[in-house]
Amino acid sequence: MDTRIRDSFARQAFLQNLGAQITHLEKGCVQIEVPITPQLSQQQGFAHAGVAFSIGDSAAGYSALTMIDDGFEVVTSEMKIHLLAPAIGTHLRAKGGIIRAGRKLLVVEADVYALQADGSERHIAKLMGTMVPVPL
Amino acid sequence: MDTRIRDSFARQAFLQNLGAQITHLEKGCVQIEVPITPQLSQQQGFAHAGVAFSIGDSAAGYSALTMIDDGFEVVTSEMKIHLLAPAIGTHLRAKGGIIRAGRKLLVVEADVYALQADGSERHIAKLMGTMVPVPL
Amino acid sequence: MDTRIRDSFARQAFLQNLGAQITHLEKGCVQIEVPITPQLSQQQGFAHAGVAFSIGDSAAGYSALTMIDDGFEVVTSEMKIHLLAPAIGTHLRAKGGIIRAGRKLLVVEADVYALQADGSERHIAKLMGTMVPVPL
Amino acid sequence: MDTRIRDSFARQAFLQNLGAQITHLEKGCVQIEVPITPQLSQQQGFAHAGVAFSIGDSAAGYSALTMIDDGFEVVTSEMKIHLLAPAIGTHLRAKGGIIRAGRKLLVVEADVYALQADGSERHIAKLMGTMVPVPL
Repeated sequence: MDTRIRDSFARQAFLQNLGAQITHLEKGCVQIEVPITPQLSQQQGFAHAGVAFSIGDSAAGYSALTMIDDGFEVVTSEMKIHLLAPAIGTHLRAKGGIIRAGRKLLVVEADVYALQADGSERHIAKLMGTMVPVPL
Repeated sequence: MDTRIRDSFARQAFLQNLGAQITHLEKGCVQIEVPITPQLSQQQGFAHAGVAFSIGDSAAGYSALTMIDDGFEVVTSEMKIHLLAPAIGTHLRAKGGIIRAGRKLLVVEADVYALQADGSERHIAKLMGTMVPVPL
Repeated sequence: MDTRIRDSFARQAFLQNLGAQITHLEKGCVQIEVPITPQLSQQQGFAHAGVAFSIGDSAAGYSALTMIDDGFEVVTSEMKIHLLAPAIGTHLRAKGGIIRAGRKLLVVEADVYALQADGSERHIAKLMGTMVPVPL
Repeated sequence: MDTRIRDSFARQAFLQNLGAQITHLEKGCVQIEVPITPQLSQQQGFAHAGVAFSIGDSAAGYSALTMIDDGFEVVTSEMKIHLLAPAIGTHLRAKGGIIRAGRKLLVVEADVYALQADGSERHIAKLMGTMVPVPL
């Protein structure tokens, strides 16, 4: 499982260019982090909603991938994100999870946190959506 | 209106780094395009869902901004995206629109298309969500 | 197509008890109406959001059913509704539509209108979601 | 708080007609139950998605109402529901909760369970959405 996911992640040029890394990986729960740099900001100087979406969606998708057979990938069918607070801090951390793992589709979620200089987490976004397994 | 939106867009480092540009701007409808480069790809080689989200969300948000008073910005409260087809082509084009413009919040949408080499558009994503005006 | 959908609708006790009727049926677009009665109201005296959801979801689902093979039903996987205005009027009318008809799932939408005494339509809700075909 | 919510609930003709009752009420968490009767069924004989939506949305809304000042109501701005399993059992139970309570809007959630004859709960739906406070 580990190798399959890390190989897939290494091919994700977009996430690599954001500076994203997998920081935790267990069955049903993958965590992705990205440093908050000026390059990721929107017009107010906070990290763009698209960054929180990208790592939240990816954490949810890789969490789904840990649940399914080798020989399959997952693709996002739909995803909703609520932005809860400004993305201010040193890093963003997305924690994926599984709400229901079906055969044809998986309902997934992710919580995104902004890490503060003192090490605390601020909850800045919540995602819930649908992943579909597709043959490799 | 035009200046306010182009100034805001110029401060969006994340969108600038994606290579995004505003290609159409009228009241209630802003269009954003980004070239599909290898840097934006996910593990299958198509543009990452986070790219379609980012320009769709931004096109919807700037469409909302054209509807409200000077002295306000908008922030995304929540957004749902359906991914309809792989993001394959030369560019992604997001067209924002307004479903309902209220005083406290605006319901917005965006359609994202992948431009093909022959100039045709392929519908690859649809977004619907909520924008909230906040004082500058 | 017509018979299959009307038979399915006739078995929908919940919709029947709401007083719902199919008022239009063509490939990709089914319309359902319900009279706004005091029995459907919420605490402010307007029709409850659950009524708009129920007929919108059903109009979208039957629109999906017109697109797929005999021997299958559709079930709602997920659905988002935006409430745009109070449900005040004589009837609610939901118009379903198809955004993308795939083999494993269909992305659908519905618009819900409150009919006014003068015959005009007021847009009160918009839905977008996912239907999954399942064998009968 | 208790009286305000029970009074509001008593005016909800639609929920009353479904047979819904508030079975738990504390700050940030209201629970609503409804018996699964043949009158609530869809074409397959399970409770209609509209029933799960209606009590989930209401449980989330009343949970929000416990968080805000007297003199205000809440209305649903948007709500997404994932249907996770068929609504088979003796009752449906919706448990509302708060994700973030802001001044202008509240992000809420609800989990809906089908109670089995042996007293166990089956998770059949999950909702996440936005409530807006409005003056009474």
